[in-house]
Amino acid sequence: MTEHRNAALKYSQDHHQETLVKMKEIIAIPSVSTDPDHKEDIQNAAKWLEKELHALGMTRVEIFPTPRHPIVYGENLSAGEDAPTVLIYGHYDVQPEDPIQEWKTDPFTPTEVGDNLFARGSTDMKGQIVACFSAVEAILQTGKLPINIKFLIEGEEEIGGSHLEGFIKENKELLACDFFLNPDTGMLASDLPTITYALRGIAYFELRVQGPKQDLHSGTFGGVIHNPAQVMTDLLSGLHDDQGRVTLKGFYDKVLPLDIEERDELSQLPVGDEFYSGQAGVPKLWGEEGYSAVERTGARPTLEINGLYSGFIGEGQKTVLPAYAMAKVSTRLVADQDPGEVYEQFKSYLAENAPDTVTWQLDKLAGDLPSQSDRKSKWIEAYVKAAEAAWGKRPIFKRDGGSVPVVVHIQQSLGVDSVNIGFGLPSDNMHGPNEKIHLPTLYKGIEALVHFFFNL
Amino acid sequence: MTEHRNAALKYSQDHHQETLVKMKEIIAIPSVSTDPDHKEDIQNAAKWLEKELHALGMTRVEIFPTPRHPIVYGENLSAGEDAPTVLIYGHYDVQPEDPIQEWKTDPFTPTEVGDNLFARGSTDMKGQIVACFSAVEAILQTGKLPINIKFLIEGEEEIGGSHLEGFIKENKELLACDFFLNPDTGMLASDLPTITYALRGIAYFELRVQGPKQDLHSGTFGGVIHNPAQVMTDLLSGLHDDQGRVTLKGFYDKVLPLDIEERDELSQLPVGDEFYSGQAGVPKLWGEEGYSAVERTGARPTLEINGLYSGFIGEGQKTVLPAYAMAKVSTRLVADQDPGEVYEQFKSYLAENAPDTVTWQLDKLAGDLPSQSDRKSKWIEAYVKAAEAAWGKRPIFKRDGGSVPVVVHIQQSLGVDSVNIGFGLPSDNMHGPNEKIHLPTLYKGIEALVHFFFNL
Repeated sequence: MTEHRNAALKYSQDHHQETLVKMKEIIAIPSVSTDPDHKEDIQNAAKWLEKELHALGMTRVEIFPTPRHPIVYGENLSAGEDAPTVLIYGHYDVQPEDPIQEWKTDPFTPTEVGDNLFARGSTDMKGQIVACFSAVEAILQTGKLPINIKFLIEGEEEIGGSHLEGFIKENKELLACDFFLNPDTGMLASDLPTITYALRGIAYFELRVQGPKQDLHSGTFGGVIHNPAQVMTDLLSGLHDDQGRVTLKGFYDKVLPLDIEERDELSQLPVGDEFYSGQAGVPKLWGEEGYSAVERTGARPTLEINGLYSGFIGEGQKTVLPAYAMAKVSTRLVADQDPGEVYEQFKSYLAENAPDTVTWQLDKLAGDLPSQSDRKSKWIEAYVKAAEAAWGKRPIFKRDGGSVPVVVHIQQSLGVDSVNIGFGLPSDNMHGPNEKIHLPTLYKGIEALVHFFFNL
Repeated sequence: MTEHRNAALKYSQDHHQETLVKMKEIIAIPSVSTDPDHKEDIQNAAKWLEKELHALGMTRVEIFPTPRHPIVYGENLSAGEDAPTVLIYGHYDVQPEDPIQEWKTDPFTPTEVGDNLFARGSTDMKGQIVACFSAVEAILQTGKLPINIKFLIEGEEEIGGSHLEGFIKENKELLACDFFLNPDTGMLASDLPTITYALRGIAYFELRVQGPKQDLHSGTFGGVIHNPAQVMTDLLSGLHDDQGRVTLKGFYDKVLPLDIEERDELSQLPVGDEFYSGQAGVPKLWGEEGYSAVERTGARPTLEINGLYSGFIGEGQKTVLPAYAMAKVSTRLVADQDPGEVYEQFKSYLAENAPDTVTWQLDKLAGDLPSQSDRKSKWIEAYVKAAEAAWGKRPIFKRDGGSVPVVVHIQQSLGVDSVNIGFGLPSDNMHGPNEKIHLPTLYKGIEALVHFFFNL
């Protein structure tokens, strides 16, 4: 086994150029999932993956159509029933390239500048997919697979309403595995291998407060009709207390507390107040009292106003008393909060606090559970050792404030834990112009994956 | 004099048909002031007035151009220096006819249906202008004018940024008069002659609260960046207390209190809670404790949110932490409040209450003083008697919640009081589709004006 591992590592080191060529091939296909003009590119990207999975040695490869963009599946179960099975996630679609004028190189012509490869989709996440392919190839070209492998690669990650959740529910047997590998969560720095063990859930609402049946003249009616924009500001303002806590009754009841060990670990992450205030360009941070910035964004639930509208918002003035006000409000949730329960809490708050001079309606637009992995699972332990072997240092453990629904859907449908890693860096401009990937980090990542697969 | 008065009244009664024909002529010119396509119609309306003022017997008639729409002036000062001089206001422009599909007759083809004449501009206010012409004509065709008369008729009342204020300031001598007659404020019902003795002023603001330098991901930054929409709702929510009072420091200091006599008069107006809740279609009224609905809309200052914007307001969801929030806020003011002082009060409020996690900017978009006429001036007494003669009942005195800047500009520049009357009814659909004027009320109004001019 050690001999095979070493041979595979050497193979991967000797084939950086081939990895780079493959990355350039898939990146050059502009598989922008939101844009109907790129429908053929999406198909071509799926076909490229099908071809590569075959070439890689997958014994079953299949493209599953969905009402929108296809899902690509590949497996090699030659390690046998006694070996563990990993389900590796990927998405082959990319964000639109806008704003195009801010790119220094063509977004779909992968361009090497120093240690970086610039192109849309390089870090998010075609580079990560190719890294997984290269690690598996290195092992298969130098011997037998020590584990069973399944690839699940979708084309709808960058758009709302992905069909992946339904596909997972309907294909539990096909996707059955011992754990889920999600290489889409990145590293905090090129010398800081990172494991993301918690992702926040979300509950997203639209609130409408209806006042008069139509816009009124604010001179004639100002003083007798309760302005729905005023009611809205009262209601929204009441959602936080003076300590920056959310006031919904029961909101914090199921929040798992941070233990001393975890707080100590989080406090050592290189993400202080200056990181957030610098990125946002604000004079001063804000938030729930009693928690550090990194705890507030990752380990504590929050409530945000995402949008607000009422009345006249054009240039100049219009003396209108608006008929209604609308707000988009979302909560980011942590384990073990439940978006359905938060919906009920919000409705109760409104029932209790909305005056009887108006009517209101609360719609739930989206809900995803938070996810939290066992930091001491054997899968994570295996990656800790792999990262130590590749980078020479123990990986750091971080929480992410965002939501990655696929991790939750896999946990719910397949009942397995996930390992969230990846080789993208904060400086990679994910979703922005001049997206890039740092090649030395990616090559180290391939070695880490080789170690990981042998460690399982 | 009594003989002349009776002859003039008879003349006006015998010439309803001629009054109607004149109304139809001017109404048929679609002088929509906001629409550049109607520029020639505006010119034609001004020329029609010029011609009619000559025909009426005005000894000086002049069209004054402005950077936008011309002002028409006419005078007959033959009553001599010992007689009082009245400056009669009018505007010959009209609102756009939208929504056109809701009109039952063509908006610019005056159409008689029963006692009503339907057309855009019929009640607001071409009918009122023609009523004044007919009253003057009745007097001049049966004898000499007992008073000096000046007409001031603008074409920019229905648009922002009228040039009338500047014209008044620059032509104080031309417009010098003993009092101002504004026939643009209407009656509460066809059997309720009405004098509007107070108009609210206004101070209109735009408030911007700036948070991060750009929209942020609400997952990554939610919990550490103070959401400017949340700050905005806190700030706006704090502008009213639990009793429905405005919290700006000093806001009520200059508000003239209502005395018992005035409150008693106002309580007899046929405008109860049901009037407002019915018109607005709301389950329940709201407002400042301790005051009736009619007091709250006319005699008390108010603060309204006219518009509200932040972040994502389209269909569906976007998990954005917005860069900024914007609100349009206006206050309606009563004597002796000052819009400039309210601006300072609002700025002080923000300086005191806005957190240092954001920056803010408050712009004053408009400011007009409130106006209040002496309910016992000899001009008003003269109209009281005139209305009693025409309708057989004492007129009611009302305040109006809206603002009529020309009344304030005349008071400020010429130092004279105003008589605000008119023969439009609440059911006339002013500014809406199917605008109309009630002809029997208008004809009574002409008789009231004849009496009025003889009473002075």
